[in-house]
Amino acid sequence: MLVKEFIFKIEEKFPLSLQQDYDNSGIQIEGPNLELSNVIVTLDVTEQSVERAIETNAQMILSHHPMFFHPLKSIKSGNFRERMIYPIIMNSISVYSAHTNYDAAKNGLNDLLSEKLELKDVKPLMKMDDFGNGIGRVGYIRKQPIEEFVNFVKEKLESDHVKFAPAESRYVEKIAICSGAGSDLLDSVLSSDVDLYITGDLSYHEIAKAVQSGLSLIVVDHDETEKFFEDGMIDFANSFGIKTTKYHERFYWIL
Amino acid sequence: MLVKEFIFKIEEKFPLSLQQDYDNSGIQIEGPNLELSNVIVTLDVTEQSVERAIETNAQMILSHHPMFFHPLKSIKSGNFRERMIYPIIMNSISVYSAHTNYDAAKNGLNDLLSEKLELKDVKPLMKMDDFGNGIGRVGYIRKQPIEEFVNFVKEKLESDHVKFAPAESRYVEKIAICSGAGSDLLDSVLSSDVDLYITGDLSYHEIAKAVQSGLSLIVVDHDETEKFFEDGMIDFANSFGIKTTKYHERFYWIL
Amino acid sequence: MLVKEFIFKIEEKFPLSLQQDYDNSGIQIEGPNLELSNVIVTLDVTEQSVERAIETNAQMILSHHPMFFHPLKSIKSGNFRERMIYPIIMNSISVYSAHTNYDAAKNGLNDLLSEKLELKDVKPLMKMDDFGNGIGRVGYIRKQPIEEFVNFVKEKLESDHVKFAPAESRYVEKIAICSGAGSDLLDSVLSSDVDLYITGDLSYHEIAKAVQSGLSLIVVDHDETEKFFEDGMIDFANSFGIKTTKYHERFYWIL
Amino acid sequence: MLVKEFIFKIEEKFPLSLQQDYDNSGIQIEGPNLELSNVIVTLDVTEQSVERAIETNAQMILSHHPMFFHPLKSIKSGNFRERMIYPIIMNSISVYSAHTNYDAAKNGLNDLLSEKLELKDVKPLMKMDDFGNGIGRVGYIRKQPIEEFVNFVKEKLESDHVKFAPAESRYVEKIAICSGAGSDLLDSVLSSDVDLYITGDLSYHEIAKAVQSGLSLIVVDHDETEKFFEDGMIDFANSFGIKTTKYHERFYWIL
Amino acid sequence: MLVKEFIFKIEEKFPLSLQQDYDNSGIQIEGPNLELSNVIVTLDVTEQSVERAIETNAQMILSHHPMFFHPLKSIKSGNFRERMIYPIIMNSISVYSAHTNYDAAKNGLNDLLSEKLELKDVKPLMKMDDFGNGIGRVGYIRKQPIEEFVNFVKEKLESDHVKFAPAESRYVEKIAICSGAGSDLLDSVLSSDVDLYITGDLSYHEIAKAVQSGLSLIVVDHDETEKFFEDGMIDFANSFGIKTTKYHERFYWIL
Amino acid sequence: MLVKEFIFKIEEKFPLSLQQDYDNSGIQIEGPNLELSNVIVTLDVTEQSVERAIETNAQMILSHHPMFFHPLKSIKSGNFRERMIYPIIMNSISVYSAHTNYDAAKNGLNDLLSEKLELKDVKPLMKMDDFGNGIGRVGYIRKQPIEEFVNFVKEKLESDHVKFAPAESRYVEKIAICSGAGSDLLDSVLSSDVDLYITGDLSYHEIAKAVQSGLSLIVVDHDETEKFFEDGMIDFANSFGIKTTKYHERFYWIL
Repeated sequence: MLVKEFIFKIEEKFPLSLQQDYDNSGIQIEGPNLELSNVIVTLDVTEQSVERAIETNAQMILSHHPMFFHPLKSIKSGNFRERMIYPIIMNSISVYSAHTNYDAAKNGLNDLLSEKLELKDVKPLMKMDDFGNGIGRVGYIRKQPIEEFVNFVKEKLESDHVKFAPAESRYVEKIAICSGAGSDLLDSVLSSDVDLYITGDLSYHEIAKAVQSGLSLIVVDHDETEKFFEDGMIDFANSFGIKTTKYHERFYWIL
Repeated sequence: MLVKEFIFKIEEKFPLSLQQDYDNSGIQIEGPNLELSNVIVTLDVTEQSVERAIETNAQMILSHHPMFFHPLKSIKSGNFRERMIYPIIMNSISVYSAHTNYDAAKNGLNDLLSEKLELKDVKPLMKMDDFGNGIGRVGYIRKQPIEEFVNFVKEKLESDHVKFAPAESRYVEKIAICSGAGSDLLDSVLSSDVDLYITGDLSYHEIAKAVQSGLSLIVVDHDETEKFFEDGMIDFANSFGIKTTKYHERFYWIL
Repeated sequence: MLVKEFIFKIEEKFPLSLQQDYDNSGIQIEGPNLELSNVIVTLDVTEQSVERAIETNAQMILSHHPMFFHPLKSIKSGNFRERMIYPIIMNSISVYSAHTNYDAAKNGLNDLLSEKLELKDVKPLMKMDDFGNGIGRVGYIRKQPIEEFVNFVKEKLESDHVKFAPAESRYVEKIAICSGAGSDLLDSVLSSDVDLYITGDLSYHEIAKAVQSGLSLIVVDHDETEKFFEDGMIDFANSFGIKTTKYHERFYWIL
Repeated sequence: MLVKEFIFKIEEKFPLSLQQDYDNSGIQIEGPNLELSNVIVTLDVTEQSVERAIETNAQMILSHHPMFFHPLKSIKSGNFRERMIYPIIMNSISVYSAHTNYDAAKNGLNDLLSEKLELKDVKPLMKMDDFGNGIGRVGYIRKQPIEEFVNFVKEKLESDHVKFAPAESRYVEKIAICSGAGSDLLDSVLSSDVDLYITGDLSYHEIAKAVQSGLSLIVVDHDETEKFFEDGMIDFANSFGIKTTKYHERFYWIL
Repeated sequence: MLVKEFIFKIEEKFPLSLQQDYDNSGIQIEGPNLELSNVIVTLDVTEQSVERAIETNAQMILSHHPMFFHPLKSIKSGNFRERMIYPIIMNSISVYSAHTNYDAAKNGLNDLLSEKLELKDVKPLMKMDDFGNGIGRVGYIRKQPIEEFVNFVKEKLESDHVKFAPAESRYVEKIAICSGAGSDLLDSVLSSDVDLYITGDLSYHEIAKAVQSGLSLIVVDHDETEKFFEDGMIDFANSFGIKTTKYHERFYWIL
Repeated sequence: MLVKEFIFKIEEKFPLSLQQDYDNSGIQIEGPNLELSNVIVTLDVTEQSVERAIETNAQMILSHHPMFFHPLKSIKSGNFRERMIYPIIMNSISVYSAHTNYDAAKNGLNDLLSEKLELKDVKPLMKMDDFGNGIGRVGYIRKQPIEEFVNFVKEKLESDHVKFAPAESRYVEKIAICSGAGSDLLDSVLSSDVDLYITGDLSYHEIAKAVQSGLSLIVVDHDETEKFFEDGMIDFANSFGIKTTKYHERFYWIL
């Protein structure tokens, strides 16, 4: 399959029209329209992921976070993002990103997470249309002590560490999730009757507010919810017979 | 010492003029001007800290985070913050908060942190005047591998867990710190020649950007840097012969 | 009847959804849910009205102007509005305000005024829905010299003084009214074919503009149109068997 | 004296640079540069004042309020302000306005008012420079009961009616004044130690706030403070031998 | 026909509701409602056109560009626009402008241009309604080399000079036009499949962008497209038996 | 000389700090730091200029207009600007732009123009510092009829066509110039006593306003004033022994 054909398939399933206003999903760097023998699937376009693409003779890097989320004003060697453009172009690599459209799409990241966590009757937290697309998800589990469910979450998300922030009432049944950073949705979740919200990148003050308002939280590292992008996209690419290489880069460790 | 006299002492040492524009430090609830037999020192004014104040017959709650950081539009029982006003007033308790003025002041929170971490030649990251007041601090340690220093930090801050995000060059010597949440200062730190930035509440994307730009990070939980507010204020109150009770509340645990 | 039940009745008849965007009608201070033996009805929550509530063992102050129209950033004794919170809470008094929702509602303040002034075919000046709710009112009187009608207005509103601003054509038949301060509606009235506008708090330049544009005015003191809030709310409370005490406070006198 | 020479004299004494940003003082309509045999002095340019100018063969209308305070988008007969342009131009009349520059200037309107009221040690409320120019004035009287002073004010300003709004403490000594409408200065006055503020066009809520905050008010009709513009400008014009006709128009009466 | 009757006819055919938000079409100066023996038709109201009106005893100037496009803050002799008001009023002349409503209206300026250039299947570039009103026009010509069509355009518009900016592909068939200055529409045209855009007042950078993006341009002087306002309005006035005088003023020449 | 050394020389003479806020002068694409055997000097970075750079083995394109004046959100083949990045990087070419800093600098573009036109006593129109840097220039010629001077301008600028817009008074002596597009400066020039303004890209309405306000204009095509960038930069590069190739591209012709 050619680069352009694969991009067409991605956009058919995860339409760019589903992305948020502030986002810049889609083609980042359009290289030659080569036959795809290998695709690097990764969360971020980094120098390491580019090196990996070169080593593996990949024709494409498929990332979750847009390489050009912030626009460019130059291509200089002193900037980590700008200096990657050189080897990418020199090696005829295309870069494509599927970010908030992948989060929001039916069968996208939040649906994958809901499935992992075995939620029932799953619906978008904020509906975008009548076809199951939307921001975040809400669903149900068997009513249980939150201490029981947090272990299940850690196991299913394969997380070594989570921040566990229980509110007074510790039985949980109605669960909201949001892949990546979920601050923007916190007020919506608080004004609903959700028992527990699972997301990443909440600040101390947001956690304090939620807990005192009666909402329990499991704050997972941002990339712990987003790593299923890699798995989902690898499955998707493989379904067209495209070989993939996963490159999962961590920027920090809990010590 | 009376409530008003103690407030006068606090504002003499940590002037309200040092607070940030967005902040609301100072008197939150002015109760009767009683003799201070006990003061609750805490990061946040919560129902638990109010209960503690009542149990211990405290005349004052002295918090780091302003109880009315966000203005009030009503006093209702359905809101965690608003419903605390009732018992506070019923029990003649005053509430006072010293937030960004305490962070910025000479001998305030960031200076306490610098001392804990044994930094040398400490200066504000962003100077406010010529008297040592300012936002954040920069100082020096003996040049050492970052792996060595991170253990020292954990030990000194008594942190069970930190996020350790090393950049390529792992020797560190010039250190920036910012108590609480340090996102606002990240660009300033990045455009300086600091080797390592220690702060709280950085997001995944901020960490990724810093590491790729060559800045190492130790991301400490927000309240791990702010708990020295409690120690500092207890010492300060004790110096006037005022008895204090520390109430350190945690909203989450790393599991 | 309990405090909460009475509030439910008020909001059923004068829904909060009818209030203007800038307004803050509704519960201001939620005290204990006591049996209502007495309610103070007043335009403004002032220290005098609070004293009156304490003297008369009232469980509620029901005001027209929201106590927290402007949000609070502290509760201090040096501020007239903030220091009332203490006695209100100490005496288990609830404070409720019905402002622009009461003005706009069918059978609310502007309808009461229209009735007082015996207007016919009364309609909202700015319609909000198809149920008679809306901002201001327009209606008709028998065509008559404005000098005749101004005396009728003074008598009906029991006003000692009004500002009488006649335009060139002094016969009036179509009348607009707006309780309280009517500046915001002036341009709407000017672009209609109303002969006379009765409202409060117009400035010199607004009066000059109206008169020169051919619109006559009767400018009544703000509280002269709003005092019918007291009468209306007393009738409303009495209809549930709740005893009331009217507290009408004047801040100034015409000398 | 020619029209242009007189304008030069006005601007020498009441420089346009003293006007507020929102104002439009200065030449409104520049007619032929005729010898000035008569000038109409008035607060507002109205059809009546224009008629008066024509009847008296005036070459100039000198007003306090700028005719073009709000910019023009057309010259039509259906608008009271626009249709005056026709007779003004047809009769070779110039229109000049001296508004906030006249209020602010040393020996301008607020200084005239201070003199009328026999204030001592008079200074601008908000200083503009070191030459006595500024917004509003503050001065002192012999300490006396406010009831005594209000009668003095009515007599000196020749006002039939004023709004008298006494705060709790009724002795007054330090007085602020602002000609015309003084809402903008209210917060400044409240944060000072002024006992009594004399101005025009305050709203019900502004009066209620001031009185409850401990500031007494005498609210005089807007044109009662501004009528001294007429007297002041007549004296000024006469000092150059220019004949004047005062046209004082009232738009309303207290009934 | 009287002035007001003719204005009624104009606004019936070219409704003011079709004008752009930023525009100020309609009556500029309303003189006496005289019988129209002569109307000056012109693009701009200038001192020369006013002189021409006086010489020809015209009762009206009918311009394309609104005399008061920018609002007035005074009527002074030192300003070219303001000083024309004097002779206009002295000579009982009315001024009326039909600008963007005339451009957008069916059978208005852009339709006249389309006809001149013999475009087929003409439609608005941006539709305003279902009646043929809208901004700009798009239509078709026989497919031909752009060099051939540019000569046709020059001949039909009687232009001595045009800026000819051909893109790579020089055959043209689908043509967009916009009378006056067409910068605002450039992005719309670029995102369509138009081959050639004919308009005025494009800057160097706009031309460079269009050509490099594959859009050919013919940039005609602003008044070369607008001069058909004069012809169209003369025909329109004549159809009511009103005599007209065309005054076409040029502000520059190509040397 | 190496690429970086030459850039250092440019920025020493035409400091980036002189650029306007909206501008993006400086390095656009940083290629390898090669020895400079040839530099393409051009106004715009276009596909043709890039081809020319490749044909001539140039290591650098030095343009007046910044390639990334508008920031980039992707690198795609469908966009004329983005698709040039590919061949530029593939051929190890650096791109550098000196735009408003070159205009403003002493001995920069406006000084070159002043010299060409033999202006005397030349000063910046808007001073930036005390060293001769600033926006636009003002200078003097021998007083002469504008018709005489316009021919001199055409000859000196080697322009085939200019727009000649004479105001009433046709003798000129004090001249303002602004390279490129001079709209932003028009109001400054109008409020000065300049007789004639020479610049590019003025619109019809700007020309009409200037002429009626008494300012004569010579509107030169944007690139007619900017082509001296090429000459100036070629001289500058040659002074370091760097070979250059001028590539002057025209996007349109006057027909």
